[in-house]
Amino acid sequence: MTIYVVNPNSSQHVTDGIDKAIDPMRAASLVPIEARTLTQGPPGIETQAHVDGVVAPLLEHCAAFENDASAFVVACYSDPGLAALREQSARPVIGIAEASILTAMTFGQRFGIISILSKSVPRHMRYVGAMGVMDRLAADLPLELGVLELADETRTFERLKAVGEALRDTAMADVVILGCAGMTAFRTDLEQHLGLPVIEPCQAAVAMAIGQVALQTTR
Amino acid sequence: MTIYVVNPNSSQHVTDGIDKAIDPMRAASLVPIEARTLTQGPPGIETQAHVDGVVAPLLEHCAAFENDASAFVVACYSDPGLAALREQSARPVIGIAEASILTAMTFGQRFGIISILSKSVPRHMRYVGAMGVMDRLAADLPLELGVLELADETRTFERLKAVGEALRDTAMADVVILGCAGMTAFRTDLEQHLGLPVIEPCQAAVAMAIGQVALQTTR
Amino acid sequence: MTIYVVNPNSSQHVTDGIDKAIDPMRAASLVPIEARTLTQGPPGIETQAHVDGVVAPLLEHCAAFENDASAFVVACYSDPGLAALREQSARPVIGIAEASILTAMTFGQRFGIISILSKSVPRHMRYVGAMGVMDRLAADLPLELGVLELADETRTFERLKAVGEALRDTAMADVVILGCAGMTAFRTDLEQHLGLPVIEPCQAAVAMAIGQVALQTTR
Amino acid sequence: MTIYVVNPNSSQHVTDGIDKAIDPMRAASLVPIEARTLTQGPPGIETQAHVDGVVAPLLEHCAAFENDASAFVVACYSDPGLAALREQSARPVIGIAEASILTAMTFGQRFGIISILSKSVPRHMRYVGAMGVMDRLAADLPLELGVLELADETRTFERLKAVGEALRDTAMADVVILGCAGMTAFRTDLEQHLGLPVIEPCQAAVAMAIGQVALQTTR
Amino acid sequence: MTIYVVNPNSSQHVTDGIDKAIDPMRAASLVPIEARTLTQGPPGIETQAHVDGVVAPLLEHCAAFENDASAFVVACYSDPGLAALREQSARPVIGIAEASILTAMTFGQRFGIISILSKSVPRHMRYVGAMGVMDRLAADLPLELGVLELADETRTFERLKAVGEALRDTAMADVVILGCAGMTAFRTDLEQHLGLPVIEPCQAAVAMAIGQVALQTTR
Amino acid sequence: MTIYVVNPNSSQHVTDGIDKAIDPMRAASLVPIEARTLTQGPPGIETQAHVDGVVAPLLEHCAAFENDASAFVVACYSDPGLAALREQSARPVIGIAEASILTAMTFGQRFGIISILSKSVPRHMRYVGAMGVMDRLAADLPLELGVLELADETRTFERLKAVGEALRDTAMADVVILGCAGMTAFRTDLEQHLGLPVIEPCQAAVAMAIGQVALQTTR
Repeated sequence: MTIYVVNPNSSQHVTDGIDKAIDPMRAASLVPIEARTLTQGPPGIETQAHVDGVVAPLLEHCAAFENDASAFVVACYSDPGLAALREQSARPVIGIAEASILTAMTFGQRFGIISILSKSVPRHMRYVGAMGVMDRLAADLPLELGVLELADETRTFERLKAVGEALRDTAMADVVILGCAGMTAFRTDLEQHLGLPVIEPCQAAVAMAIGQVALQTTR
Repeated sequence: MTIYVVNPNSSQHVTDGIDKAIDPMRAASLVPIEARTLTQGPPGIETQAHVDGVVAPLLEHCAAFENDASAFVVACYSDPGLAALREQSARPVIGIAEASILTAMTFGQRFGIISILSKSVPRHMRYVGAMGVMDRLAADLPLELGVLELADETRTFERLKAVGEALRDTAMADVVILGCAGMTAFRTDLEQHLGLPVIEPCQAAVAMAIGQVALQTTR
Repeated sequence: MTIYVVNPNSSQHVTDGIDKAIDPMRAASLVPIEARTLTQGPPGIETQAHVDGVVAPLLEHCAAFENDASAFVVACYSDPGLAALREQSARPVIGIAEASILTAMTFGQRFGIISILSKSVPRHMRYVGAMGVMDRLAADLPLELGVLELADETRTFERLKAVGEALRDTAMADVVILGCAGMTAFRTDLEQHLGLPVIEPCQAAVAMAIGQVALQTTR
Repeated sequence: MTIYVVNPNSSQHVTDGIDKAIDPMRAASLVPIEARTLTQGPPGIETQAHVDGVVAPLLEHCAAFENDASAFVVACYSDPGLAALREQSARPVIGIAEASILTAMTFGQRFGIISILSKSVPRHMRYVGAMGVMDRLAADLPLELGVLELADETRTFERLKAVGEALRDTAMADVVILGCAGMTAFRTDLEQHLGLPVIEPCQAAVAMAIGQVALQTTR
Repeated sequence: MTIYVVNPNSSQHVTDGIDKAIDPMRAASLVPIEARTLTQGPPGIETQAHVDGVVAPLLEHCAAFENDASAFVVACYSDPGLAALREQSARPVIGIAEASILTAMTFGQRFGIISILSKSVPRHMRYVGAMGVMDRLAADLPLELGVLELADETRTFERLKAVGEALRDTAMADVVILGCAGMTAFRTDLEQHLGLPVIEPCQAAVAMAIGQVALQTTR
Repeated sequence: MTIYVVNPNSSQHVTDGIDKAIDPMRAASLVPIEARTLTQGPPGIETQAHVDGVVAPLLEHCAAFENDASAFVVACYSDPGLAALREQSARPVIGIAEASILTAMTFGQRFGIISILSKSVPRHMRYVGAMGVMDRLAADLPLELGVLELADETRTFERLKAVGEALRDTAMADVVILGCAGMTAFRTDLEQHLGLPVIEPCQAAVAMAIGQVALQTTR
């Protein structure tokens, strides 16, 4: 039995990043954890059409692993197909956005989200609203960096620090969420810089999956 | 130029019902209104997988009409693809669930929703939450009738009255929404029975589409 | 039958501005649209006493047109008498503040309001609260310009741009509402400057009125 | 200096009831408390038009007492003119609906409101929404008794008990508000019957006025 | 290193029940899990004074285990000392009420809580409000059974079924939480009876603790 | 009979400051008002452990005065023991944080809170959430001054002005609360500087206590 962490875009380097993010957790899990790539997905999930469009292949992908799965983690910050996969599967199903927010709610009272681009913010706001936790949101602020700019790690970290400070000092966040699956490498440094807990969503989701696998033993 | 009302399931009789619901509005619209069937859709939209799964064909269907469209109406109470179609199209895009709720907010202070089945209620609740209008919701209560039972109009109307009374008298709703595209025939009688305005969502959506087409003239 | 747009203050030039704002919509409406001045109103509606005080003459004014009216629009951003007029009239009754907010909720996920003066903000906040849509509000920020300053169009547009940018970049609004009946002339330029939809409330209200007139045909 | 409790309807017997309700508080107040009738008001405030219509004469009435007033209490459960009177007067201005709710929030965690008629409930809901305290509301349920039925005290008390029990046992209210200025006589008996605190709004408002008069000494 | 589950009342049989509830999870955890009794606590935590009073001894108790602890679980449905213990300890600290609610938010959209007594409901409501998740609450309804009645398992299960049905059918809950640490034995049967997931809070908390222990490996 | 204002920390100079703050209200109260020090409390209440830890001695302290008390005021901005003392005492029990917020809700529509340190903000947020009034909060911003810095009155007032301006101009607060028991001396000057009402919480609480003592006469 395995916890399957499914990256719903087709970029293997994103899956590799997710794998690296969750690797330290393997020693703390009795169940193997496997990061997989949804090869039918688009290279990146950037629009609502992408979010909705990956649901059908994602469901098919996961159906094939249902018998071997301890749990599924959907590893994209828009949590595509989360509700549909929960209807389909008998296993625990965790989305990284939902898990990051629920985890943040145990680390602080007001969570801030760092998004890549401002055009994702309305999608996040619909989701935070659907989760019914808008009163816990400090703010969701974007790095506003394009793909090329993100490749510049120094520049990215400068923006992470600036946005994190705005969340902490102006929006009064006391916990910060990295609102994207690909910023793991900065988590520790940002946490140290801000003096606040910083949540990496894939890690938070795998943690919740490990817990819910244990919870299944009681059912 | 035409207002396209797209039924995202493949059942022509559902499209016919929608067409009948909106027919009286044609005389009040300068723009033709056409009800269409998404033939690639499932016969009915009953699960979250159906909701997500129709988005891709719906987007394709609407893209083909973009140049001729004054506006699009998505005619399924789960508003599948609403956000994605808004990203894709330059025309006003209206969903019948969203429109019914916004319209109800001008007819009363607390809206009640009548759903077919209780299993739709969590999906609706996520949506009402994403819309940020939970404080205006009186309750969402199901008829809990299967397809065969719905074919019995007498029985359906009895349940509509009973659920409508519960919304009015226990949940204190002062406006009621038919939470499904196929209950138009009962609207007037239910309104009279309850003494409260009853909103049929396809009609509310077409009304809003007619208005937003007019609004486009100012832009 | 006519859609009556009633300016509840006695300033004819305000009515003229409203008339100009909605003029392009006449070609898109089967029903004539007439802007009227409530001559018994004060020259401007600046205090809560003004808001409450115009209700009685407004009701009387509209009662005289009830038989000829397709719908009424109350054209002041405090929506004076909206609830009372709805109790009195059998026609659709639309307020420009409510309509602008409901319309904005179909154009974006977080609406920002641009007010003239900060002293209007608490009144708006009571109203947004009564509408139950506080979770959709990004912020309501004032131009803080007096009557003389408003007469300087260059200065006014500078402030509109600055406040719009604050709503977009700090409060993360993705749709902006002009929180006053008299700023129509700036709508298009501001929309272009901000790269976000900008809602003019009289236009939004007339759009909704046109739609609800069509909706009446189904009842 | 006097605390003026203004009944905005013209029925002297309502004012007499208010006077009786607050009479025990006179011994606990250093400031005289005077109940007054707004003779220009309607015999009863039953519609939104009544609510809005009494504001102008109420403002005029209170302006005449401004110099002698320690505080004003608006004694109608729709709090007509509360915001306008606060703009006009330099004295503390208390509305009985607002005061009853704020007071209830110190007596319990979920307040229930007993209204006379269901048609008042939407007006109350707008107000609870404007106050931003919807999460503290258990429910607002009506007696649904007409004027003649209210004259029958036995029947009225039976309904008060039934509605109070529904608020306590179904809506889980732990404090109950009498949502009308004229039910003082039942307060103690209802409190005893329900085993929950029952708030009479005129008394709550006068209490708050006495407190705010004392608070003025610090300013 | 051990996950310490601390029962903050002094009743060993309650600790034994907790131990039994979480026993199946031991096989799914790499870390030992130990249930402990706070011998300085009262026999039961029934009042707010009890809740506040156990915080100091609980903090002292946990401080002694800080070096050996992987995580702490506070096993009383009022989550006494949760915020204080989080300030004191460098380990993950989980409260069973918070964990049950966050877990329920992944199992359904509207959670219902079954309390023992109605007098606990206001305390729970303060807590659900502080968590900012009131919009996800269907209702919190009491069994209203005293200690002797709770000893009668047949009667208790009858009440659990009746209250569970009310949560499901009237309040439209789609997930139910046992709002007390001592009802584990009924969980499976109640889940089967209702056809909804039923959350036992100690199990949910231990699951979350196991997950957060794994999460610590990334920090 | 006396209104007891209990400072739950052991610092007599804090009690002296409270005494001075409420002194002008004595002339407006028929009941004596006495400020007392909880000598068993810590010198200052700075952590959640302090908040919870003072509850037991506070309850004991107040129990000894129950027969002589008209009302109790808990004079620390974390309102320690408020719920517990309400369960224990038959007298009105007022907390300065709750009272300041409820009073602010009658002075303006959006209250801002000025805290001493940012680490108090999450605690305040839990409390505002538990009160269910998050929609009325503009923001809670800290002075971020340590004990020594607070001793410098000039510097403290500079920060009070700066934070008050941020609350007024950025967060759009129209009423400001001093979120601490020890800033009375600055209230009037800050009010004048900001042009907004500024609430001192001990004064607001004593005002509410005076009112509720009068309210007791009706019960």
